[in-house]
Amino acid sequence: MTTIPTLPDAAATPAATFTPPQFGVGARVTLAVMSERYADIILAAIRSTDPTGLTLETGVVSTFVGGAEPDIVRYLTDLIAAAGRSGHHVSATVHFSRGCPGEVICELPGGAGPLHSEIPEVPATGIRAAGEWALYPLDDGGRPGTTPDHMRDIYAAIDYATANGSFVASEHFVTRLEGDLATVIQTAAAGWILVGRSVQHVTSHLTLSINSPSAL
Amino acid sequence: MTTIPTLPDAAATPAATFTPPQFGVGARVTLAVMSERYADIILAAIRSTDPTGLTLETGVVSTFVGGAEPDIVRYLTDLIAAAGRSGHHVSATVHFSRGCPGEVICELPGGAGPLHSEIPEVPATGIRAAGEWALYPLDDGGRPGTTPDHMRDIYAAIDYATANGSFVASEHFVTRLEGDLATVIQTAAAGWILVGRSVQHVTSHLTLSINSPSAL
Repeated sequence: MTTIPTLPDAAATPAATFTPPQFGVGARVTLAVMSERYADIILAAIRSTDPTGLTLETGVVSTFVGGAEPDIVRYLTDLIAAAGRSGHHVSATVHFSRGCPGEVICELPGGAGPLHSEIPEVPATGIRAAGEWALYPLDDGGRPGTTPDHMRDIYAAIDYATANGSFVASEHFVTRLEGDLATVIQTAAAGWILVGRSVQHVTSHLTLSINSPSAL
Repeated sequence: MTTIPTLPDAAATPAATFTPPQFGVGARVTLAVMSERYADIILAAIRSTDPTGLTLETGVVSTFVGGAEPDIVRYLTDLIAAAGRSGHHVSATVHFSRGCPGEVICELPGGAGPLHSEIPEVPATGIRAAGEWALYPLDDGGRPGTTPDHMRDIYAAIDYATANGSFVASEHFVTRLEGDLATVIQTAAAGWILVGRSVQHVTSHLTLSINSPSAL
């Protein structure tokens, strides 16, 4: 049972009418497999993962995954789990963002307001993961009452991770999470979504380790 | 020749008297080598890299590197270059932070002010790298005149990357950099340091790809 922390929720705002692509909801993911067969393993993981509802763009360093939060969380969990099932040591870097679509300039400047989303549930994968997680409420000049309060927002996210058992420790610059891969990814996404209920532009970075010989 | 963008510089502040550890200057690095021999290659890279002046703490997911900016940049460049010289495809995730020492709570709350640092120069490695880079000026309730302006700060950092030739493109959520590994790391660090002259708490995330068969 997970307690949902209390944060101001500005759902009844104009931003609530935006679609996820209009609001710039998405993630970037980089998957590393410590094997000479990494290309085959990553391609097989991609082929086995359902991209329904998502826009995928593969780049030199990472793959962009755009769409609604539940689809993003499901896709990332399935993709990284598939690579983890190879049995090799896998490292994955995930970068979530919402509230700032566009390239250099946000096409939704600060006044658009936050967008309410529900926290998605994801079935367990059976794969243990360790994660290091950072969460960033960003100030782009929002409306009064929707501006970030970094510590308030971080505490709410850590409360969530503590309630579901994935919180391990606070380290320099990051929170360490451990648990089923689905829980770790869902927890990072939950913090991002919770803070996004009161702050328009929120990003979150999660580095994951699976099958490490030195831990878990 | 690199043009240094013009940003407000609050060097003459009390924060200018803090040491790098007191100010929480550091990075976390995760190194992934796509080979069954990854442990040997990473251990050899660590052994060949001079840690002088730095505090290193190796964790499950990443290694913390604390110290002054020039030492951090030199260490990360030498470490990742050593792994890259294995010839294997290498992925590295780097997370810079300054202005928020401590665990969950910044031990320097927002009023401490920014800390001026010089941009370090690093010799070329001869290794090509592609990077995806995000830069976050964070609002922890700073003094007037030292608060973040996300777009002003990002533009200054991109101006720097354009001037030294490493800027390739703006992608969703990130700036793509390419060039010698030293230049790519130095450019990300330069943006972090430049923004840090007017904003106390600044983080930056850089994902690097070396020896990728699909690019470079």
